[in-house]
Amino acid sequence: MTDSQLSHFDDSGNARMVDVTEKAATVRRAIAAARITMQPETLRMIREGQHAKGDVLGVARLAAIMAGKQTPQLIPLCHAIPIESIEVDFAELDPATLECLVTVKTSAKTGVEMEALTAASIACLTVYDMCKSVDRAMRMEAVRLVEKTGGKSDYRQAEPG
Amino acid sequence: MTDSQLSHFDDSGNARMVDVTEKAATVRRAIAAARITMQPETLRMIREGQHAKGDVLGVARLAAIMAGKQTPQLIPLCHAIPIESIEVDFAELDPATLECLVTVKTSAKTGVEMEALTAASIACLTVYDMCKSVDRAMRMEAVRLVEKTGGKSDYRQAEPG
Amino acid sequence: MTDSQLSHFDDSGNARMVDVTEKAATVRRAIAAARITMQPETLRMIREGQHAKGDVLGVARLAAIMAGKQTPQLIPLCHAIPIESIEVDFAELDPATLECLVTVKTSAKTGVEMEALTAASIACLTVYDMCKSVDRAMRMEAVRLVEKTGGKSDYRQAEPG
Amino acid sequence: MTDSQLSHFDDSGNARMVDVTEKAATVRRAIAAARITMQPETLRMIREGQHAKGDVLGVARLAAIMAGKQTPQLIPLCHAIPIESIEVDFAELDPATLECLVTVKTSAKTGVEMEALTAASIACLTVYDMCKSVDRAMRMEAVRLVEKTGGKSDYRQAEPG
Amino acid sequence: MTDSQLSHFDDSGNARMVDVTEKAATVRRAIAAARITMQPETLRMIREGQHAKGDVLGVARLAAIMAGKQTPQLIPLCHAIPIESIEVDFAELDPATLECLVTVKTSAKTGVEMEALTAASIACLTVYDMCKSVDRAMRMEAVRLVEKTGGKSDYRQAEPG
Amino acid sequence: MTDSQLSHFDDSGNARMVDVTEKAATVRRAIAAARITMQPETLRMIREGQHAKGDVLGVARLAAIMAGKQTPQLIPLCHAIPIESIEVDFAELDPATLECLVTVKTSAKTGVEMEALTAASIACLTVYDMCKSVDRAMRMEAVRLVEKTGGKSDYRQAEPG
Repeated sequence: MTDSQLSHFDDSGNARMVDVTEKAATVRRAIAAARITMQPETLRMIREGQHAKGDVLGVARLAAIMAGKQTPQLIPLCHAIPIESIEVDFAELDPATLECLVTVKTSAKTGVEMEALTAASIACLTVYDMCKSVDRAMRMEAVRLVEKTGGKSDYRQAEPG
Repeated sequence: MTDSQLSHFDDSGNARMVDVTEKAATVRRAIAAARITMQPETLRMIREGQHAKGDVLGVARLAAIMAGKQTPQLIPLCHAIPIESIEVDFAELDPATLECLVTVKTSAKTGVEMEALTAASIACLTVYDMCKSVDRAMRMEAVRLVEKTGGKSDYRQAEPG
Repeated sequence: MTDSQLSHFDDSGNARMVDVTEKAATVRRAIAAARITMQPETLRMIREGQHAKGDVLGVARLAAIMAGKQTPQLIPLCHAIPIESIEVDFAELDPATLECLVTVKTSAKTGVEMEALTAASIACLTVYDMCKSVDRAMRMEAVRLVEKTGGKSDYRQAEPG
Repeated sequence: MTDSQLSHFDDSGNARMVDVTEKAATVRRAIAAARITMQPETLRMIREGQHAKGDVLGVARLAAIMAGKQTPQLIPLCHAIPIESIEVDFAELDPATLECLVTVKTSAKTGVEMEALTAASIACLTVYDMCKSVDRAMRMEAVRLVEKTGGKSDYRQAEPG
Repeated sequence: MTDSQLSHFDDSGNARMVDVTEKAATVRRAIAAARITMQPETLRMIREGQHAKGDVLGVARLAAIMAGKQTPQLIPLCHAIPIESIEVDFAELDPATLECLVTVKTSAKTGVEMEALTAASIACLTVYDMCKSVDRAMRMEAVRLVEKTGGKSDYRQAEPG
Repeated sequence: MTDSQLSHFDDSGNARMVDVTEKAATVRRAIAAARITMQPETLRMIREGQHAKGDVLGVARLAAIMAGKQTPQLIPLCHAIPIESIEVDFAELDPATLECLVTVKTSAKTGVEMEALTAASIACLTVYDMCKSVDRAMRMEAVRLVEKTGGKSDYRQAEPG
């Protein structure tokens, strides 16, 4: 393993957008996840609000989808990739933890890991924004790539979680 | 504590941008932090690159500053706040963990917590992007508000870390 | 009434952003409305989806709020104004017509009419996008300024509707 | 006709960006129209300004083209589509009514109806912005899809206007 | 003169957005200019098109105004400043040279030099884009700050041109 | 040579985005350059800062890459093109002159000249921003297309510089 493996730099150490002109466009998929921990009371409010008093997760889901589309404006050396599908799911891992799972697909010359990771992060940050008036100590944890397929090499996270 | 404390919803549960016209503009500061864990070999490459072969943290710092300015386009119900200062610092917590600390200041009617949290998150995601060719298992952890001052009530995280 | 009343042009007919440096910042409010007509069956689906199968109006409301913040990137000669409040309401005027009402507030040197009109328009366009698979003939009608207050002169639409 | 026809929601009612990875890229065209009604005196000023004192329609045309390119940032569940052609025309329907017609083309897996509708809407809103100092009662009407071709099914509006 | 005068870096050499919280908001104005040289035939086409066949300078003026508003998204360490006025003028310096002069005003804690320089540059690049089918050898020259007033120190370029 | 050669206008002189639906997607490359002149002392500071006190050129390089991706939001009639590679190099032409060279590649139906020119311009403007506290008289010169290949006709600038 040598320094030259950081492909976002040239031999002089200058940042660049990696040349993908010669790569083949294939269907690629990336799944990323992120968690947000909070007071059980806060999670109870989110759960109940979904049905009546304010749909925190609905807002966070939209924010995730729109942020996925903005990824090349956020991650400096990212290629602009036409996203062809985004799905955003939420699950309660325990009474104080929400997990957000984002699946992004494209047909392109490079993958959509950063789009999935950015969308999952913004989903959790939006939950933070909407609940911060009642719980400022919420934390985002375990933002990670769960799986990627469709490029030169696939990847799947070692152990769950 | 009642549902009405989620100030981003009205009485019917509809999302809204909270009305701040009557609030006073004061100097406000928020500090947020985020960690990214990785292989010690990856962190070694980042550390050495800073001096010679590619400045990962320099790129991540710029990404954080620019993302801070884009926060109202990312977090749906966030007010557009004129950021008057951003500083981004990195520290090695241990041989496999980088911590990013972002301080944002403004003179405005509402705070800059979301700007600081967004900047810290994008800093770590940019580190991920630049190093993912050598280490796809990096994880972002402990994204949190460290401190806020200057609004109606101050906040400081309970215990370090 | 002379041509010089089109304040967005100088004496030579060149477009410009009007100079507001000498104006006073005051609290200003604008209310805009827009309607979207559709098949009664489509409106029934929207109404029922709100509770169970997909919240069209929740998505449209978010789109309106975010578009309001993007107004200066859309309307070329618009000043960038810090929006301090947006509220978006929907009402059924008849079994085939939804009306969207947007209220925007700011404390600034110029008004937020364009922000309110843009938000109301994007709300209806989002409804179109979400329902177009079942009803391509939906139409947006009566996009208008309902009321503005807080600047040099107030305005209220002549007759309802 | 069932609720599941709202393809922007999954079976649980969660918003999503529809998966188009399996669709074929074809040449697609959409034509949208919008009207803006005003005082005849206002339309006279627009008409005369074109030649001498300020080209309202030239500004509105540019705004429409640029807004067409921003559509995926405005309509939350829209795919980002590379627009390959936009044309924007204006016609006077009567002494108090301007009609804007926008034609958008692409070679993509999904259509450009939303791009055409968004461009036509922003064209009219820009006319409003530029003339509002003389006529605040202008209204936007009949924003609609005129025609779409090139996808699975074509569409043409039932009757003119 | 020492390195510490590059105020966009802290003592460790890290980029930052300079803290302006303690500065006073004053009316500030910046004037920037840029030239574009071309074949005399190209300039003749631009001149004649203004009246009949396509208003190159009208498009360039709009592009300049909109780019001025996007400056904080383009210049990484720039503060987001609410522009309160932009005017864009063109003059023919000789039969092969257009000069673009941009005046930007604000009431803010820091100046608008970058907004004026960015707007003037984008105006000339837009002229390039619109005429490149007939003259690829056009060049942009003498992009410079002409004058700034209203901050701690004023500035005026030494000699004309 | 006739007016109709300005392809960004239709026969009536209305601006439009040129229709490229029928063109073939090919690998295209554009190289653009720009210079910035300054006090030799300023260039000395930039050169030394690279190693220790603040990497002006590193920031400018990132700004160039990100601006290249924003080109369709800046140049009104530009198509949105997926950039597949950007490289940004700096060279000292003499003790008072930096030259920035940008190479952009894509596989698309139209070229990336504007992307390369925009990136080179923003690189120099960013250098200006970072050094303006010590040298307000810096000037950007010779912004030009150096070479383009891969479309219907190639181009190479006549004489160096």
